[in-house]
Amino acid sequence: MSRPERTGELGRPAAPGARMLAEIREQPETLRRLAARSDDFERVARAVRAHGTRLVRLVGHGSSDNAASYGVYAFGLLPRWTALRDSITLTVYYEHGPELAESAVVALSQSGQTPDVVEYVRRARAAGAFTVAVTNEPGSELADAAATVLTLGAGPEQAVAATKTYTAQLAALALLAGHLAGEGAVVAAGLDEAADLLERHLGELERRAEALALPFAYVGRMFVIGRGPEFATAREIALKLLETCRVAAEPLTATDLAHGPVAALDALFPVWAIASRDATLPAVADAVERIRAAGATLVASGTAAGDVAGADYTIPVPEPSLPLLAPLLSVVPGQLFARALSRARGLDPDRPAGLSKVTLAR
Amino acid sequence: MSRPERTGELGRPAAPGARMLAEIREQPETLRRLAARSDDFERVARAVRAHGTRLVRLVGHGSSDNAASYGVYAFGLLPRWTALRDSITLTVYYEHGPELAESAVVALSQSGQTPDVVEYVRRARAAGAFTVAVTNEPGSELADAAATVLTLGAGPEQAVAATKTYTAQLAALALLAGHLAGEGAVVAAGLDEAADLLERHLGELERRAEALALPFAYVGRMFVIGRGPEFATAREIALKLLETCRVAAEPLTATDLAHGPVAALDALFPVWAIASRDATLPAVADAVERIRAAGATLVASGTAAGDVAGADYTIPVPEPSLPLLAPLLSVVPGQLFARALSRARGLDPDRPAGLSKVTLAR
Repeated sequence: MSRPERTGELGRPAAPGARMLAEIREQPETLRRLAARSDDFERVARAVRAHGTRLVRLVGHGSSDNAASYGVYAFGLLPRWTALRDSITLTVYYEHGPELAESAVVALSQSGQTPDVVEYVRRARAAGAFTVAVTNEPGSELADAAATVLTLGAGPEQAVAATKTYTAQLAALALLAGHLAGEGAVVAAGLDEAADLLERHLGELERRAEALALPFAYVGRMFVIGRGPEFATAREIALKLLETCRVAAEPLTATDLAHGPVAALDALFPVWAIASRDATLPAVADAVERIRAAGATLVASGTAAGDVAGADYTIPVPEPSLPLLAPLLSVVPGQLFARALSRARGLDPDRPAGLSKVTLAR
Repeated sequence: MSRPERTGELGRPAAPGARMLAEIREQPETLRRLAARSDDFERVARAVRAHGTRLVRLVGHGSSDNAASYGVYAFGLLPRWTALRDSITLTVYYEHGPELAESAVVALSQSGQTPDVVEYVRRARAAGAFTVAVTNEPGSELADAAATVLTLGAGPEQAVAATKTYTAQLAALALLAGHLAGEGAVVAAGLDEAADLLERHLGELERRAEALALPFAYVGRMFVIGRGPEFATAREIALKLLETCRVAAEPLTATDLAHGPVAALDALFPVWAIASRDATLPAVADAVERIRAAGATLVASGTAAGDVAGADYTIPVPEPSLPLLAPLLSVVPGQLFARALSRARGLDPDRPAGLSKVTLAR
């Protein structure tokens, strides 16, 4: 990577992917800033608990919905509450959807402008739910619509593909879930540790991801698999590949791969597997055997990448003390790979065709 | 389609796709048999209500998980209960997942053998949840594990790709949700009507789906989009294309398409859109505009397929009186297309490589 990375100062156009790389590199600092605001999350956790519910409805689109997949595990494993990625449609498009009063809503939108997420929050709040906006824009419509706001404080995100706001959303969900479980201080300390680990290993991750771009320059389709909290990572990496590289990348849980999609695999259809040291690792190992039997090229990342037998490429990430925080680290090789692959394919990862930073789709 | 369709009698090997076609054609009869057993569903609905919950946890993999996506809408729109596709992982892989006592579990598995679905039901039942197995095999492990069983009665399904058991699962979920809302008789009558409509239009649907196979013989990747109850249809059609045609087909909600994946579209990346006459139709129309702007080939199916401006191919399906039952009809063109495309690509849709009928993956 000998091309200089310009960030657009002096009015010069930034080099392709310069913004995305700069924002990927800001992630440790973003995580530390969130950890330092642990008290804000404690205050909101108290308000959620005061509402008397143990059911959390998560709503968002795109990367925010991927973060919601992580939230299911953060709330499920820390306070042991049920969290669901709720159907926005049921509440926004139909006269009589489910009753929402006895629940908390956590609405995720980087821009705070996603129209149906804003509308969902308005209706849920009117119906008596306790609504929390998690957004990077404290002055946004979403922030106005919700009863309370948790800002991401990630600074402006200029690349169209979300990176630092995604990991900030994961951190925010972990902090809120941690405080609901009376473990907020542990999560905050865990975020500081994760930030340090990421900072220390970022150079090595960049080198490894960059080296992967050329061998994959011609790929048309890919599966990205993970299970448990790492399914969120699989979804987010697949989305980065779709939007910045135009690869038909589909996320699957390790188990769902075996229920049909494995039949599509062959040597021209590679798989990226996220293997983290966690209770779900045996399910990923089982899937890996099927992938190898199909003759597909295999990339393994995650905290247990080194344990994946027969992987063609591995990008291990450092292991945080709290296994639940592993997804904050394991998404980073995917972000870096998507950026590098996009450039290898002659695209600009900062400005994918047909996308704008704020999506106002119905 | 001049090749005779053999079903394997007299020991002769069945022609490729003969089983799948026979099972697709059995769907009207399967739906009628379920409608006639409406009382069974009323009995189970009473037992669910007696448990004192209004939260339904749906679990399944593959086609069964796609049916669960439909269940979210059936329970959300009929009794107005919250239903979620629950994380199996949280309960099966971790010591302390969410508390399940105050909920009903509806576990879906054609074979009744899916290991982690069986294990989930055992744990949920032990934790105090009311558990219902929905399966085609009344003597299965899943049926044994659950407190009560609703059998699909679809007869043996021999093709590896599920068809009649999928629509039977939708019908079972609609019947159960209907009885929970005191509308069981309306849903049962609606199923009879849907069966009649499907029977009457099946020949035409077969001709149209068959005619689509040749133009798509070379396709490598596809999106399938739908919203609301038809997101289940999008997921199920994409799964059929993956497993029987080896097409990298990815399901997306109409809205999520705009949040990134649309950037991957071009003339070589077609989209199948399910457009049904329903409150969510404007969201699908919005997505269709983006698809056309990207220059992607567009197939429109569903009850409102004829309203989709600029579709390159349309396969309309007849409109049932109950809009919630449209997904039982709108999946059929996808089943037929997958079978025809599989044959056009020289594959046998009855026996996809690397799959067996019963999946025992962890």
